[in-house]
Amino acid sequence: MKVCRRLTFNAAHRLFNPEWSDEKNLEVFGKCSNPNYHGHNYVMETWIEGEINQETGFVYDLKKLKDLVQECVTERFDHRNLNLDCEEFTDLKTSAENIALVAWNILRPKIDSKYNLMIRLWETENNIVEYSGQ
Amino acid sequence: MKVCRRLTFNAAHRLFNPEWSDEKNLEVFGKCSNPNYHGHNYVMETWIEGEINQETGFVYDLKKLKDLVQECVTERFDHRNLNLDCEEFTDLKTSAENIALVAWNILRPKIDSKYNLMIRLWETENNIVEYSGQ
Amino acid sequence: MKVCRRLTFNAAHRLFNPEWSDEKNLEVFGKCSNPNYHGHNYVMETWIEGEINQETGFVYDLKKLKDLVQECVTERFDHRNLNLDCEEFTDLKTSAENIALVAWNILRPKIDSKYNLMIRLWETENNIVEYSGQ
Amino acid sequence: MKVCRRLTFNAAHRLFNPEWSDEKNLEVFGKCSNPNYHGHNYVMETWIEGEINQETGFVYDLKKLKDLVQECVTERFDHRNLNLDCEEFTDLKTSAENIALVAWNILRPKIDSKYNLMIRLWETENNIVEYSGQ
Amino acid sequence: MKVCRRLTFNAAHRLFNPEWSDEKNLEVFGKCSNPNYHGHNYVMETWIEGEINQETGFVYDLKKLKDLVQECVTERFDHRNLNLDCEEFTDLKTSAENIALVAWNILRPKIDSKYNLMIRLWETENNIVEYSGQ
Amino acid sequence: MKVCRRLTFNAAHRLFNPEWSDEKNLEVFGKCSNPNYHGHNYVMETWIEGEINQETGFVYDLKKLKDLVQECVTERFDHRNLNLDCEEFTDLKTSAENIALVAWNILRPKIDSKYNLMIRLWETENNIVEYSGQ
Repeated sequence: MKVCRRLTFNAAHRLFNPEWSDEKNLEVFGKCSNPNYHGHNYVMETWIEGEINQETGFVYDLKKLKDLVQECVTERFDHRNLNLDCEEFTDLKTSAENIALVAWNILRPKIDSKYNLMIRLWETENNIVEYSGQ
Repeated sequence: MKVCRRLTFNAAHRLFNPEWSDEKNLEVFGKCSNPNYHGHNYVMETWIEGEINQETGFVYDLKKLKDLVQECVTERFDHRNLNLDCEEFTDLKTSAENIALVAWNILRPKIDSKYNLMIRLWETENNIVEYSGQ
Repeated sequence: MKVCRRLTFNAAHRLFNPEWSDEKNLEVFGKCSNPNYHGHNYVMETWIEGEINQETGFVYDLKKLKDLVQECVTERFDHRNLNLDCEEFTDLKTSAENIALVAWNILRPKIDSKYNLMIRLWETENNIVEYSGQ
Repeated sequence: MKVCRRLTFNAAHRLFNPEWSDEKNLEVFGKCSNPNYHGHNYVMETWIEGEINQETGFVYDLKKLKDLVQECVTERFDHRNLNLDCEEFTDLKTSAENIALVAWNILRPKIDSKYNLMIRLWETENNIVEYSGQ
Repeated sequence: MKVCRRLTFNAAHRLFNPEWSDEKNLEVFGKCSNPNYHGHNYVMETWIEGEINQETGFVYDLKKLKDLVQECVTERFDHRNLNLDCEEFTDLKTSAENIALVAWNILRPKIDSKYNLMIRLWETENNIVEYSGQ
Repeated sequence: MKVCRRLTFNAAHRLFNPEWSDEKNLEVFGKCSNPNYHGHNYVMETWIEGEINQETGFVYDLKKLKDLVQECVTERFDHRNLNLDCEEFTDLKTSAENIALVAWNILRPKIDSKYNLMIRLWETENNIVEYSGQ
């Protein structure tokens, strides 16, 4: 049984590899490398897989999951510049893939290991990524 | 190959454990334990996995799947109070997890065992569960 | 210039006219008159029409509008039984039309009369109402 | 008869009044005033009102409307920092209201005056504005 | 007070003016003029404006509105080729504008004149039209 | 790590088995067998599973994936009659299952075998299929 809580955050970012020339950055990342940043309304689904607790009927209390994800991920990223304000991305491109990876790495130690964890992240209505650990 | 039919039903429910005090119910279930019930527009996806029948191009006729799910699940739950009107929940909390479990248990014997079955249920636009058997 | 804040609440209700027989209630309201209630995920848009304040760029601060609508409407209706728990509906059917009317009547005196006010309410993804005063 | 074309753009922005102290900016704009910007997936609907041309069945060719709005508005704002990269906002807060106003002012002279024009802009799934001229 | 029922139909169509050359059709209608037709999942909202009936709480019974629109419009257009199967379009282009106009003309005499009527039609998620009479 | 690009195409089709009588076609396929075709706004998600490239932060450049899917699938099917215009369906029913299968078979050789590939296709908002190879 899997359960999910959907949350959102709005952030600025830029895709840029400092080891490359501006030309190569433009060639690979296109307008996503524009120097003054752009932004997205990110939608993040946090999925937990486990057994139903028959006392509550819950796999995982979704209000507690909401509080956990807000405190650890979405409130930290919301209304921020991921490249400048969030230390997790100091050495990491702020691609949707890496944002999902960082969210998973933040949440994994805070959720009992008897549960599986998966993150699904919408960068736009057309671009989606999923990460469930290796 | 997997195929899915999406259906909806609108129902009242309440999360409440009769073995607990009102204080403990409020602590665990919050406003979901309000005594006079609240309700949701449930969205239920029924997914079937199997082989394509080359005569029809179908894994499973989605019109027949719709009729089956409506007859066995959504028409029985629609415009009902899950706690009071649906005997499946006499001894079971009406959490989204258990609603998906009950729907799966109702449908599983009615769908040939050569097909896998998965239920995805939205309780709200933010809370989702999935069940595909153990 | 019009601005809108979208909010949700989940509530139980029943359509029932106590001056009618059960047969007439069933004939007019169908399964919406089921005695043990059903429920919906209501989506409510609050629209304000006015001039832009050039100091802020806002017609109306949408965070303040959110706080106002939550305090006065959605938190009062959320996870409630509109028929039993909300005194506004003691003598009023809990149709989507009347819920929008009640929300408008609650909010109108709390919003400066220089602004026009409109409420749009989704009862389901298929049933919508709008009220903007007479 | 009204017709609409929906388009999107992803941009960074910040709400900030340079005539105010940082404290007042934070008080009025909250986290929207964070100095390193944040961003949104803006959704913009351009509505045209006019008569049907019976030779084509169109009020206004929506492919031409798409090309016009892309060229004049969405491609100029897409993957940009509205505060830093778009001269229209040099002296204007980048609120959703002003973005809709700017888009309307850009498009109005490019669309024959026999048509009415309205812009509807989603900043997030919960915040919407509309502008149709005074 | 306005109320709306949303319904869908799936149809094939082609934009083509028989008085024009194939070249001119291609120039004006582009791939919409492809000779073997293409198709859409049309979404049609039917809006009724009137007074609330205090006995029911309804402006217009949305179940009756659903039955009326299904019988008169959506079941006639659903799984049809609008150009070949629907006589209303014998001399009329099957543009979204004209489909909304035809639906309005069909429904207007069947709804008491004390109510205003508006049709909103989605041809795709990006192309929308509205018609409310002249 | 999985990444997805969502694209759309609008096409006409008909479900029909030429080895069957018209009666049997009508019995099995219902109005989907109407002789003059109907149509849909198909939504197609292309999912790629692989490792993150740390130079780009990407599993697969979604702009390149968009270009590939447009060139090979969606532009070929868009504004077409799948039964008449697309040779892939000469001997194959144009069911959603087969459209997903054909798209997968077209794309699989064009995407490095180190990546897994999955296609999710919406025929309507209620009917969905997924194919990820055998």
